[in-house]
Amino acid sequence: MRIIAVLLFLIAASTTLAQIVDTSHSQYAVLHPIPIQSVKLDPNSFWGRRREVTLERSMPSMFEELEKHGTMDNFRRLEGKSNAPRKGPVYTDSDLYKWMEAAAFFLTGEDHPDLRQKVDQMIQVIGAAQEPSGYLNTYYVDDKKDKRFTEMHRSHELYCLGHLLQAGIALDRANGNHKLLDIGRRYADYILATFGPDKKPALTGHPELEMALIELARQTGDRRYVDFAGYLFSGVETQRLHLRPDQTTYMFSGIPFTSRTELEGHAVRAMYASSGATDYYAETGDPQYRATLDRLWADEIKHKLYITGGVGSRSDGEAFGDSFELPNAQAYTESCAAIANFMWNWRMLAVEGESRFADVMERALYNGINSGMSLDGVLYCYRNPLESRGEKIRNEFYDTDCCPPNIERTMGALPGYLYSTSARGLYVNLYNANTLNGKLEDGTKIQLTEKTDYPWKGAIDFEITPDAAREFSLFLRIPAWSRHTRLTVNGAQVPATAGQYAEIRRTWKAGDRVQLVLDMGPRLTAANALVREDTGRVAVERGPLVYCLEKPDQPLASSLFDESLTAVHTQFTEQFQKDLLDGVVVLKHPGLAAAKPLEDDPLYRDFGAPAEQNAKPVILTFIPYYAWANRGQYEMEVWIPVAGAVTRAAR
Amino acid sequence: MRIIAVLLFLIAASTTLAQIVDTSHSQYAVLHPIPIQSVKLDPNSFWGRRREVTLERSMPSMFEELEKHGTMDNFRRLEGKSNAPRKGPVYTDSDLYKWMEAAAFFLTGEDHPDLRQKVDQMIQVIGAAQEPSGYLNTYYVDDKKDKRFTEMHRSHELYCLGHLLQAGIALDRANGNHKLLDIGRRYADYILATFGPDKKPALTGHPELEMALIELARQTGDRRYVDFAGYLFSGVETQRLHLRPDQTTYMFSGIPFTSRTELEGHAVRAMYASSGATDYYAETGDPQYRATLDRLWADEIKHKLYITGGVGSRSDGEAFGDSFELPNAQAYTESCAAIANFMWNWRMLAVEGESRFADVMERALYNGINSGMSLDGVLYCYRNPLESRGEKIRNEFYDTDCCPPNIERTMGALPGYLYSTSARGLYVNLYNANTLNGKLEDGTKIQLTEKTDYPWKGAIDFEITPDAAREFSLFLRIPAWSRHTRLTVNGAQVPATAGQYAEIRRTWKAGDRVQLVLDMGPRLTAANALVREDTGRVAVERGPLVYCLEKPDQPLASSLFDESLTAVHTQFTEQFQKDLLDGVVVLKHPGLAAAKPLEDDPLYRDFGAPAEQNAKPVILTFIPYYAWANRGQYEMEVWIPVAGAVTRAAR
Repeated sequence: MRIIAVLLFLIAASTTLAQIVDTSHSQYAVLHPIPIQSVKLDPNSFWGRRREVTLERSMPSMFEELEKHGTMDNFRRLEGKSNAPRKGPVYTDSDLYKWMEAAAFFLTGEDHPDLRQKVDQMIQVIGAAQEPSGYLNTYYVDDKKDKRFTEMHRSHELYCLGHLLQAGIALDRANGNHKLLDIGRRYADYILATFGPDKKPALTGHPELEMALIELARQTGDRRYVDFAGYLFSGVETQRLHLRPDQTTYMFSGIPFTSRTELEGHAVRAMYASSGATDYYAETGDPQYRATLDRLWADEIKHKLYITGGVGSRSDGEAFGDSFELPNAQAYTESCAAIANFMWNWRMLAVEGESRFADVMERALYNGINSGMSLDGVLYCYRNPLESRGEKIRNEFYDTDCCPPNIERTMGALPGYLYSTSARGLYVNLYNANTLNGKLEDGTKIQLTEKTDYPWKGAIDFEITPDAAREFSLFLRIPAWSRHTRLTVNGAQVPATAGQYAEIRRTWKAGDRVQLVLDMGPRLTAANALVREDTGRVAVERGPLVYCLEKPDQPLASSLFDESLTAVHTQFTEQFQKDLLDGVVVLKHPGLAAAKPLEDDPLYRDFGAPAEQNAKPVILTFIPYYAWANRGQYEMEVWIPVAGAVTRAAR
Repeated sequence: MRIIAVLLFLIAASTTLAQIVDTSHSQYAVLHPIPIQSVKLDPNSFWGRRREVTLERSMPSMFEELEKHGTMDNFRRLEGKSNAPRKGPVYTDSDLYKWMEAAAFFLTGEDHPDLRQKVDQMIQVIGAAQEPSGYLNTYYVDDKKDKRFTEMHRSHELYCLGHLLQAGIALDRANGNHKLLDIGRRYADYILATFGPDKKPALTGHPELEMALIELARQTGDRRYVDFAGYLFSGVETQRLHLRPDQTTYMFSGIPFTSRTELEGHAVRAMYASSGATDYYAETGDPQYRATLDRLWADEIKHKLYITGGVGSRSDGEAFGDSFELPNAQAYTESCAAIANFMWNWRMLAVEGESRFADVMERALYNGINSGMSLDGVLYCYRNPLESRGEKIRNEFYDTDCCPPNIERTMGALPGYLYSTSARGLYVNLYNANTLNGKLEDGTKIQLTEKTDYPWKGAIDFEITPDAAREFSLFLRIPAWSRHTRLTVNGAQVPATAGQYAEIRRTWKAGDRVQLVLDMGPRLTAANALVREDTGRVAVERGPLVYCLEKPDQPLASSLFDESLTAVHTQFTEQFQKDLLDGVVVLKHPGLAAAKPLEDDPLYRDFGAPAEQNAKPVILTFIPYYAWANRGQYEMEVWIPVAGAVTRAAR
């Protein structure tokens, strides 16, 4: 199977190139992605295995789930091939489109006949459901036909179009199959003909279409789509659509994007809008957009980002909270929001070229996104809380099934996120064992092999083979968390500063070797004192991974929440356990367990009265956060109380 | 005005007696309330002034608001006297009924002609809107008529009936005007004739009717109403009504009340259901109800009660959270929920006779209820958070205007909560300067005067004058918070244990004096370590009052949240400031302010890196929580960080 795939890859790679976000010709992008098919993940690597599980288990099982819940029949009935009533919420079309986009990424430079046949079949079905005008939506039909575009704050009609376009573009780039893109473009052209400042008013009640339109412009060369995205961001329709402030806050849409000063409202909407606005900036260079994006990014990083890379604190409205409002058990942190955050930072990386954006991508990918799919690839989290009493968190399907195919498309496209290029050379954004066969921007062909056990080990070995000796820069991201980094070129040390790309500029020749050794020492991390729930607590991190305590690994029968970490001296021991959770580095650290359950303490007591006495020494065992809830339903905690912090507060 | 009122009181008191909850003949109640008109609050006392503001300012302004928002016109249009369309949400009828119940309490033993005329006028309007069948609801009319009782999980039809009955009963008890009660009873009888196990299925989608029905049985002597309440609690209609678990959780209704193991779902619904179930127990003595109530009460006290006496942690569903889920800024703590908690504990006090229930009442009344109405009586809180960045919290009206008249009826009825009787004697539940002219259960007439500056001072002086020398017990509640209590009878000390009623049994004769001195020393209170947001923090309490920091009182320009309290030694100074916030005792305590704003610290940092250095000593000024947000919109905080707790955690 693997051999066939590689052979087909070689054929496919010669015909078409598939960037995830194609900024190749974007005037205001400083970095440009390399095509997905240029990168082959090592099948035994961390992400190679995860991507394989997605392809082998998630993609077929999710297709079955979508079939079972009527998502495909919703299309078939429009062609008269199903008598079933329309099923599911208003936005189900997009679940299928997102699955198809994931499939497109897996079909990029590889062939998987079963997957390809499913996709081809569904393109037929979708095409048959399209109306002659171009309109295509399975919800606003029959008696709901009159409501088309009359309730855009909730209709998701433009949201579904956005996902249709993204799937169509990904398929066109994957193997030149442009049938779905043609369908999407017909619908998009219908929208452009119908809506606009001097036509009917349009609104993306759930932003998403904006980035799809800009990608459509990139794919087709038609700038009208960029202009229409600009119209959607302009907020000129606030009055014609009678939008209330609570609506424009929630939707992160409907008022000028450039008037935004903070991240608020529905988290996925805000992140998709910001992603689209970054794409818009890459094409237009509008300085007001750049200033707005920088302001919003600072707001995220200073106030609203979970340590897992997730965003969206509140269940109520699936929304951003106030600054420093980052509850743990109540964290909403939808998988889609972490993915959208990853997507936004990918675009910010392209337009700003700084490693801090890739740092956020890494944080989200390894933690808040990766936690969203079970190790076996068939169960998904919608929420990704940082603390749990053991409620059921993973399910095979959700009525609002946005997250599962969103994770799948992220895994499918993953090879394309590892590298970027600029006029100066090659950027390594994310680390994972792989082989790159690509081109620099000056046309130099380059082969690069990366060997590493990252994220379990910090040593990363590169061998660089340009087609001839060439001067260019190799940029290696030094994660902000790496306190002691060693970087050598053919054995000679070169400078490397945490939180920046280390630029190695030289004339590279075949067989040059670079070794990067990142600091994988376990870290204790504290939160800003204004994060109420993290006061007196620490999180454990190692490399890019956030760790957690989960009940099955702890020695005592009592509640996990009776345990605290002894932090006078940091004394971690670490061990790779290959049979645990598909193989993870486990961390152990001394801690204390309350002599009697804290649950039995009164809710309120005199401050002077000690709450905790005779605590018992225990050894706490930490596992990577992404791997929790794979052995059943158990207590879990990311932010661990520091022994003494609480008792000392109680004198 | 006052003289007239007192004269009228003397006339009225001779005709009818008005208990708030009349357990006089309830077989399973151990305490029985005294009539509202037996107690006259000192007009200069804490609650005397608050009740006067309610009467003079809140009642007329809320009547105007209800008029302005169409609540009365909704009734008038059914009589053809208004052409306005029906306004407001499904439950607005109840807002008027609750205002009328409040008016009834103010008209108990007193006359206020303007208020009485408004009530009489509205009774006319309401009566004219009633259908011949007895049905009475302004929402389910015209094109919505077909939906009557078809969507009981949301319709509030039975909820509105409950409030109609409570208002009718209060008016009947106030001055014998039974017109509104007759209207309510006709509607209730229509319900009993239409619904039941062998008729159509009924559901209180928002429990409330249950306690009204039991009070109706008490008022009319007709036990059928108790039985129907039992039917509503039985949960026998889960299947006939196709109720889903998420619905029965949210509604706290629809499954057997006796199957409940914890407080969950919509907080006001849960508290009203529990109140009604306590009433049901008082009448039936069903041990399963008693066990369920005790279980739920323990759940509240151990896990879910805010220090302010508020309940309901979550905005999402206005709901109880998990155990120990007590966020501060995000606390929902609806005014109605604190009131409902007060009402439930009042009923629990009647059936169990233990001071712990009155302790909860006191906590809710002085803090989470009292905060709900501005000092000038015309602005209301819907939410009562324990921390604020200064968002607008007080408004004159809400579309869902349940809270304002709920506070008004609590203030109206307040004199009736101060005392109870049992066969052994008289119970003093709540302290406030007043005069009682009432009867013991053996018929002994008794006059009792209570002089005190409570809650500002701890000394409370009673003079007891029975009509003749009699042996009986005087029970004085010793609040659980009073660490050092002194109780004397005619100068001789008697035992008093915190958290219990101190029983003084003797032969009382005219002029006997009792002095109770409660410990008003300011207290620092810590929360259970499982309350995430309160870790490393303390609350300041004094007597029954919870205190808070509000920005205008602090010395520095920087954020309130940069301040912490130095708790190595507790060093409070206190002073009564009569010109501040209508007169409050202000507390001052040393603290520290961060040298630079915590806002500028990174969101995450190495645990080893100190977050706070060179903190400046400051004096923190605390005001009673109930008085916050009366000078504009400012930062406010109840749970204050303990200086050192956080920095020490950061090594």
